[in-house]
Amino acid sequence: MEQSAAKPIRCRAAVSKAPGQPLEMEEVEVAPPRAHEVRVKIICTSLCHTDITFWRMKDYPAMFPSILGHEAVGLVESVGEHVQEVAVGDTVVPVFLPQCGECADCLSPRSNICSVLTYLPGLMPRDGTTRFSLAATGEPVHTFLSVSSFAEYTVVDVAHVVKLGGGAAALPPETACLLSCGVSTGVGAAWKVAAVEPGSTVAVFGLGTVGLAVAQGSRMRGAKRIIGVDMNPDKFEIGKRLGVTDFVNPNDTGGKTVSQVIKELTGGGADYCFECIGIPSVMEEAFQSSRTGWGKTVILGTDAAAAPVSISSSDIKRGRSVTGALLGGIKPKDDIPVLAQKCLDKELELDGFVTHRMEFDEINRALDLLDQGKCLRCIIWMDGDEEERPSRSGTDTHT
Amino acid sequence: MEQSAAKPIRCRAAVSKAPGQPLEMEEVEVAPPRAHEVRVKIICTSLCHTDITFWRMKDYPAMFPSILGHEAVGLVESVGEHVQEVAVGDTVVPVFLPQCGECADCLSPRSNICSVLTYLPGLMPRDGTTRFSLAATGEPVHTFLSVSSFAEYTVVDVAHVVKLGGGAAALPPETACLLSCGVSTGVGAAWKVAAVEPGSTVAVFGLGTVGLAVAQGSRMRGAKRIIGVDMNPDKFEIGKRLGVTDFVNPNDTGGKTVSQVIKELTGGGADYCFECIGIPSVMEEAFQSSRTGWGKTVILGTDAAAAPVSISSSDIKRGRSVTGALLGGIKPKDDIPVLAQKCLDKELELDGFVTHRMEFDEINRALDLLDQGKCLRCIIWMDGDEEERPSRSGTDTHT
Repeated sequence: MEQSAAKPIRCRAAVSKAPGQPLEMEEVEVAPPRAHEVRVKIICTSLCHTDITFWRMKDYPAMFPSILGHEAVGLVESVGEHVQEVAVGDTVVPVFLPQCGECADCLSPRSNICSVLTYLPGLMPRDGTTRFSLAATGEPVHTFLSVSSFAEYTVVDVAHVVKLGGGAAALPPETACLLSCGVSTGVGAAWKVAAVEPGSTVAVFGLGTVGLAVAQGSRMRGAKRIIGVDMNPDKFEIGKRLGVTDFVNPNDTGGKTVSQVIKELTGGGADYCFECIGIPSVMEEAFQSSRTGWGKTVILGTDAAAAPVSISSSDIKRGRSVTGALLGGIKPKDDIPVLAQKCLDKELELDGFVTHRMEFDEINRALDLLDQGKCLRCIIWMDGDEEERPSRSGTDTHT
Repeated sequence: MEQSAAKPIRCRAAVSKAPGQPLEMEEVEVAPPRAHEVRVKIICTSLCHTDITFWRMKDYPAMFPSILGHEAVGLVESVGEHVQEVAVGDTVVPVFLPQCGECADCLSPRSNICSVLTYLPGLMPRDGTTRFSLAATGEPVHTFLSVSSFAEYTVVDVAHVVKLGGGAAALPPETACLLSCGVSTGVGAAWKVAAVEPGSTVAVFGLGTVGLAVAQGSRMRGAKRIIGVDMNPDKFEIGKRLGVTDFVNPNDTGGKTVSQVIKELTGGGADYCFECIGIPSVMEEAFQSSRTGWGKTVILGTDAAAAPVSISSSDIKRGRSVTGALLGGIKPKDDIPVLAQKCLDKELELDGFVTHRMEFDEINRALDLLDQGKCLRCIIWMDGDEEERPSRSGTDTHT
């Protein structure tokens, strides 16, 4: 592989050319990694709601054409200058959130928001350019969330990759892929942001992968009651397997508000409420569902419109709080290897999250399934050697 | 004193009869304490902005006639049935926030919001009646915040009194009075809610007693920069003595927003922002002034209109949080004696907070001074034995 380090690679990528239109499989040219960059051969990628949000988005920060995808695992194919942290052949998880390791935030245990590498929509974080172009025309193609994993090869800043070394290298690729974003977000929020403790009550708004990972993380921390809120009743069955003990369908509350129902179920409100959808009114309902005295609301969902959230200061003053996090408050390079080890040790069970598996050229079907709430994580295996798929089952798709 | 336990007492009280009108000195009858209640002879009381808020308020929860005042220190004159915690002659600090000591909240270190004794505006918390009536007509007079300290005698639920026993009984009455509400709120917020640590940056919105107590508490915890925000430039001089290092006057920022100025002063935003006024737009500006990554906004001010506060979920997700507290998050019976001891040990210096002293019949002048921002705490000494005033200086009024 080393020989390709200095040369562009031509490979397949699923290119998003217009808002909401099917991704188009194109041959793209992937430039060599520049200083502090790593070119990664994607083993598998999965789809996250943020991909759908940006796929549909008409205006900035959405940019077209672009290569979506930000939840993946891969192998380092080549490295640019000054890259010491990883070497060719290493297994890496690319992550949308950088960790430079040197700024005040990266050095503090309290923050996971790197203050040096700020996000440049559509572009590489360090020099504001892109490594992708259409092979046929040379037209530049934007990167996405500093990752762009819907391609056989991508270039990622070294601050955006986590090396799975040591024992963690043995982690099945699908599990590693889950740790790249959604599952880490949910588990991290339960463990680090809320620090759920034994016996607590938890309400989870939105039972997608993030919400169910919150439930799973909360169950593992001994929460006694985990209330899942979702309009899709199908989510309850899978939710039960991942820790949800009670289900509230906002369309079926007999005229009560969701927060009223949750207050009844918990005797006054949940200790921890997690918003995992990205809708301001749901964030407000989550806050209303939290307990006076110490109730904490954790916002994880992304509202593309960035509308403000209204909260009552008198409720806040009665001991409630609102906080939130990107990537569940975890520091990618510090915490993802820890989560990987917990998966290997069976302390963290993620088997339930992969509901579908597909080939790369089926990616539009995967997008539709997620969009319709019919899957949790659909793993897209890139065309690669079959032996790279240790955890893959015999069927291509199963629920 | 014991003989009076079962009998009504007639004494003077400053009665609020109509919104915004001067208090009227009246003879009132103070009924004996009922079960779980304590009748207290007020030694001194001080005025807090919440008194002014309710004095001006036209509608519920304001009620007329009533006896305002909730920051005081006194002596137990008599006790009702089932009162074991205090005895006649004990020095007590009455507090608007109850601590029953038995509910889930009182038993948890995380909450100071008693979930058994909920606040009944204008009435005693346990039976919903009042102990006050006008001596001349027998008309009932409402209690206020479960305390009503603008009277020579008041009746308070035992859950609302803190005994200053042991060494703390030696605390000068004026200092004990300060610990009853405002100073405890500010110091508690800095120490318990924010847990300000050495080297941190703090922004305080509103330099009244609460805000300056936040500054003082933050300085004692080693904050390196304490930015005071107030439209009254006179507050800066006294602020400096209590820990404020930088002053921002919203009317004099050269067209910048206050949060822009604070971000410049702190290199990105303060670690901790405290809102000590009670204005939603100021709460929002405080939040905007907080640092990405770990910035915490603590709401202490009371907005009488209870208008919602708008916050950006995308800012929240970048590691910020909003919380708030009544009485600075302190548990009255547990924490006020600790603060009292720290005052005795000179670990907590409150000398700067008492700017004026007056006789009881000058209370309307004290109300005006506070309303005009011309004092911090004005101590009203009830007509009592001179020897009860150990810390009183020779002059009645000094700034």
